[in-house]
Amino acid sequence: MTNRTFMATILLCANLWVPLSAKQQPDQSAQANPKEVKVLVVYYSQGGNTEKMAKAVAEGAQKIVGVTALAKKVADVSGEDLKTADALLLGSPTYYGDMAGQMKSFIDDWFFKFRVSLVDKIGGAFSSGLGGTGGKEHVLYSLVIAMMNAGMIVAGPLIEGMGGVGVSALDPVNDVALKECRALGEHVANVARRVKTGEKRK
Amino acid sequence: MTNRTFMATILLCANLWVPLSAKQQPDQSAQANPKEVKVLVVYYSQGGNTEKMAKAVAEGAQKIVGVTALAKKVADVSGEDLKTADALLLGSPTYYGDMAGQMKSFIDDWFFKFRVSLVDKIGGAFSSGLGGTGGKEHVLYSLVIAMMNAGMIVAGPLIEGMGGVGVSALDPVNDVALKECRALGEHVANVARRVKTGEKRK
Amino acid sequence: MTNRTFMATILLCANLWVPLSAKQQPDQSAQANPKEVKVLVVYYSQGGNTEKMAKAVAEGAQKIVGVTALAKKVADVSGEDLKTADALLLGSPTYYGDMAGQMKSFIDDWFFKFRVSLVDKIGGAFSSGLGGTGGKEHVLYSLVIAMMNAGMIVAGPLIEGMGGVGVSALDPVNDVALKECRALGEHVANVARRVKTGEKRK
Amino acid sequence: MTNRTFMATILLCANLWVPLSAKQQPDQSAQANPKEVKVLVVYYSQGGNTEKMAKAVAEGAQKIVGVTALAKKVADVSGEDLKTADALLLGSPTYYGDMAGQMKSFIDDWFFKFRVSLVDKIGGAFSSGLGGTGGKEHVLYSLVIAMMNAGMIVAGPLIEGMGGVGVSALDPVNDVALKECRALGEHVANVARRVKTGEKRK
Repeated sequence: MTNRTFMATILLCANLWVPLSAKQQPDQSAQANPKEVKVLVVYYSQGGNTEKMAKAVAEGAQKIVGVTALAKKVADVSGEDLKTADALLLGSPTYYGDMAGQMKSFIDDWFFKFRVSLVDKIGGAFSSGLGGTGGKEHVLYSLVIAMMNAGMIVAGPLIEGMGGVGVSALDPVNDVALKECRALGEHVANVARRVKTGEKRK
Repeated sequence: MTNRTFMATILLCANLWVPLSAKQQPDQSAQANPKEVKVLVVYYSQGGNTEKMAKAVAEGAQKIVGVTALAKKVADVSGEDLKTADALLLGSPTYYGDMAGQMKSFIDDWFFKFRVSLVDKIGGAFSSGLGGTGGKEHVLYSLVIAMMNAGMIVAGPLIEGMGGVGVSALDPVNDVALKECRALGEHVANVARRVKTGEKRK
Repeated sequence: MTNRTFMATILLCANLWVPLSAKQQPDQSAQANPKEVKVLVVYYSQGGNTEKMAKAVAEGAQKIVGVTALAKKVADVSGEDLKTADALLLGSPTYYGDMAGQMKSFIDDWFFKFRVSLVDKIGGAFSSGLGGTGGKEHVLYSLVIAMMNAGMIVAGPLIEGMGGVGVSALDPVNDVALKECRALGEHVANVARRVKTGEKRK
Repeated sequence: MTNRTFMATILLCANLWVPLSAKQQPDQSAQANPKEVKVLVVYYSQGGNTEKMAKAVAEGAQKIVGVTALAKKVADVSGEDLKTADALLLGSPTYYGDMAGQMKSFIDDWFFKFRVSLVDKIGGAFSSGLGGTGGKEHVLYSLVIAMMNAGMIVAGPLIEGMGGVGVSALDPVNDVALKECRALGEHVANVARRVKTGEKRK
């Protein structure tokens, strides 16, 4: 079964998730209740590098007033986690130039297991790896493409006025990389807050 | 000179463009003056297919209340056009699996000629081409990656609840593709409106 | 652990696989014994589309004199299959714009399970999916990038004098796509034969 | 006009280039006349980094007995250069996450100006840029995808038994990067030699 097929299937299972129209109502009380914006950071990590990055991403997100951020291992994420998140950041090590199979299987499970719609949630990506040309960037592209195929809106980090597709770090992860991770979390959380508290569709 | 270098150079030329902090002030009067959101569609077209797509993208954007959309040939775009746009959609034919050289040179000119910051503008991408595997998708990826490197937030079309990285169309462009282009313009314009009218950074 | 790390680890486990120098000796008897060139087609398929493509790829490879081609499900492939193959073609359906998790985990297992070097083997890629922009191309890119990270040489199909990164097919797979698959198998097998029977490194 | 269109047009202009069948005849005298294998390295460089890489790539290619390697600026390349090359390596700086417009326009000119077939030539890619995640890898992917769309066979560097899609270097280029460039040139030249001196298609 392919991307479009399972997206279509989701539409046939509409009772399984909060209707789009409801989800996209602007939250008029966002300023009164700034705890509203939830940021979920999902990572796979074997040696600990991607985990360090994930925690820094969550830390950065938490800097935005009204944001609650949570970093979770890919194996521990529930459908409820995904459904209630306003922003979703994904991080993976680089194996043969792309994300780990465990992360890809988690993404496939958005349909196969969780049957969750991620439309209009805000996304971001990060990766770790060795070597300047070893595929760390391609991991970011694959993560961003997956999120956009799911209907998400995607943002990168802003670092000294510069943009980027996401953050990739050489193993072992150093302080510069962790600073970039915090910038990624902060920017994605900020965009999520602005999108969530904006006016509704006409 | 490379990406980071010219981004850094932009920072040193801050007087050339509207300061980031000013640009990102929320527009409190957006609901009173809904004409505020500007969508710029930039395309390169030789045979006319990408031009048809560009017009459909602009048409879709125009559906959102408060949006003014404009489709312009790549050669006709000014720095002022880029600076004042809230959303920027780029479209190109597929030559050897990537965007046309003319479109890439236009993108390079964001630094070399226009010295414009596109941070936090909303982006979208479309492409035309022949063949199921001829590179139409890679054009979208390259456009999206360029926009994210410039600090933009990127969204795709929503079609019957399904997402996507952008819209690619087989030559000659048919009605289904044009409908997808309208969906792309509509969604990107809608996101731009929500981001622009959201609350400001804390 | 990342790409470079496990590649480096492979180097430390050199006794687990045929040394590079031995593997790369030209086969002086290739013309006398043209059965020498082995083409392995590995696929993951849930609905049957990618399987049909895999069989057509193997059929195309078999057209080259001296080639033995075999199509195998990803779950059935052994380390011996990988080690003895001169060419390796990978095919996957498109889930959220990238290959299926099962295929990615198989690729990761080149290190984690099989500890096999694929250096200088010839590679090719194919994918199935729905939608013109649904990610079928990105699957090809990810497969090609994985193979190049493993040190493989990569070729696409030649169709009426035209090249390509691989073959992607809309679901359900039609005769045009199957013809393209045969062209892919044929070209990759031919390149494998030429590389294998060429002179050795100086 | 799109990729497939201009590839098809090339077929209609067959008298403009050496017929495929002739080009692919094995060169029986290759061992007697090892000077036969020509490697062309084409680069665009503004600050000098990519130029240094190009020269190292050519140097590496020259190590293979029988290879003549030449590095040329993109503006100086003729149709004859392309037609007579057995291997073609392309290098570009990274602007907004993709190759420079000048390099893309050169690639487009394979059809628009040179009308040359690159089928079965061996390709390789390199890039320079700033930042770990600035797009240097995407330049490699775009170059490799362009070459495969033109029907080329693609190989990366082999460095201590490890593969790669190509070589990307941080600005300013250091000795490690130049060593990788030499490894890229050497491997691509070696593959070109093996393919050229292999037996002909059956």
